[in-house]
Amino acid sequence: MKKYRRYNKKSEYSYTLGIIPTIELLKAKPEAIAKIVTHSKLNKDTLKLVNGYIKKHHVTAECNDQLISKLSTKENCCMVGFFKKYYPALGGGNHVVLVNPRNPGNLGTITRCMLAFDFTDLAIIRPAVDIFAPKTIRASMGALFAISFQLFNSMTEYKEVFNNHNLYAFMADGQSTLEKVNFEYPCSLVFGNESSGLSNECKKLGNSVQILHSMRVDSLNLSISTGIVLHYLYVQGK
Amino acid sequence: MKKYRRYNKKSEYSYTLGIIPTIELLKAKPEAIAKIVTHSKLNKDTLKLVNGYIKKHHVTAECNDQLISKLSTKENCCMVGFFKKYYPALGGGNHVVLVNPRNPGNLGTITRCMLAFDFTDLAIIRPAVDIFAPKTIRASMGALFAISFQLFNSMTEYKEVFNNHNLYAFMADGQSTLEKVNFEYPCSLVFGNESSGLSNECKKLGNSVQILHSMRVDSLNLSISTGIVLHYLYVQGK
Repeated sequence: MKKYRRYNKKSEYSYTLGIIPTIELLKAKPEAIAKIVTHSKLNKDTLKLVNGYIKKHHVTAECNDQLISKLSTKENCCMVGFFKKYYPALGGGNHVVLVNPRNPGNLGTITRCMLAFDFTDLAIIRPAVDIFAPKTIRASMGALFAISFQLFNSMTEYKEVFNNHNLYAFMADGQSTLEKVNFEYPCSLVFGNESSGLSNECKKLGNSVQILHSMRVDSLNLSISTGIVLHYLYVQGK
Repeated sequence: MKKYRRYNKKSEYSYTLGIIPTIELLKAKPEAIAKIVTHSKLNKDTLKLVNGYIKKHHVTAECNDQLISKLSTKENCCMVGFFKKYYPALGGGNHVVLVNPRNPGNLGTITRCMLAFDFTDLAIIRPAVDIFAPKTIRASMGALFAISFQLFNSMTEYKEVFNNHNLYAFMADGQSTLEKVNFEYPCSLVFGNESSGLSNECKKLGNSVQILHSMRVDSLNLSISTGIVLHYLYVQGK
């Protein structure tokens, strides 16, 4: 069947590679699952655990070593979960906003980081890397299935929809430093992409904030920046 | 010549892929350079900049498109810097200690993060991913060349050498939280690897510290954890 094949971004379906993201898919989005595929070398305890979820949610499953080896470049991949792509909408709480993210690993790491610090809404401004690419899902370790995300064509479009949000744009030359900002909620934490950061236009959107660092590097890695900010707010809220 | 070939970890030489890490190599470790290789499509301004460094440090250089395409999987790679691997030793200042790191991307990101927050000494406990692998260098964006690092066979060996350092082991069930620790210097910030974290043995080494996060993820990504801690200490020191 056409849906059980190597991913391309036009496909209606995508898949998890590996045990951890597949279990997260089973826990968080069972209704989207098309089929769970296991490898014959999967250990019995994990198979038992997975079978529990499979039965509970009446999910189709099969053992198919050949299909797994077709999809995964890693030899130790023992499980794949095919699912139909879905398009959740954001709620009115706090958001992370990524402007034109390009790297699937960073995007995945950021979704996991969001979940770690109780942020569950992600806005993505196009053009952007495909959130459903297997690489993104793998880097998220399945955290992607536990958050909501929504794509927008521009910051303007995003701002029109969420006009009561307080915007904080993180930029190398932001007007305040993270520790001096008096955050107001609901907030939108806006981050630029890996190569060009945010344009100066973004300063007009609301508050611009910088994360202090030495002059020995030009900028921080995108997922590190996001992690620092989300952790800071999480601890503040405790 | 044998040294100008695809990397394997037994080789005496390694190389940078891309403009940014090659420029960092030229700036920080010109004495280690064997040859700079440029691609004919490299833009003139960058070539001029690079030629400045090449002349200043009397480095060998050549234009060789074929060699670059042999080494790089990315089409837009325009520069490669071959260098002889070198083995710096750590100073007596603050250290980051990575126990058995496995992922070259994480290791590279961490070295860049260290430089961003003025940490310049990295201890690595074997077994560990190869710090000179081109993937590590690329993820570090060349920051690797600006820090010192040293390999140790065990935490015990490390501790014997740096017996006046105050150890802080970051673990999910650490006794204090980051914000409550009264750090004493020189310090060693010890992080476990991507899959298993630090063993309980590490609690005996000194102080154990946790980074607060929600229960929705098992653990934080290694480079995110390191980033959060280094940023926290950097801001504290300001």
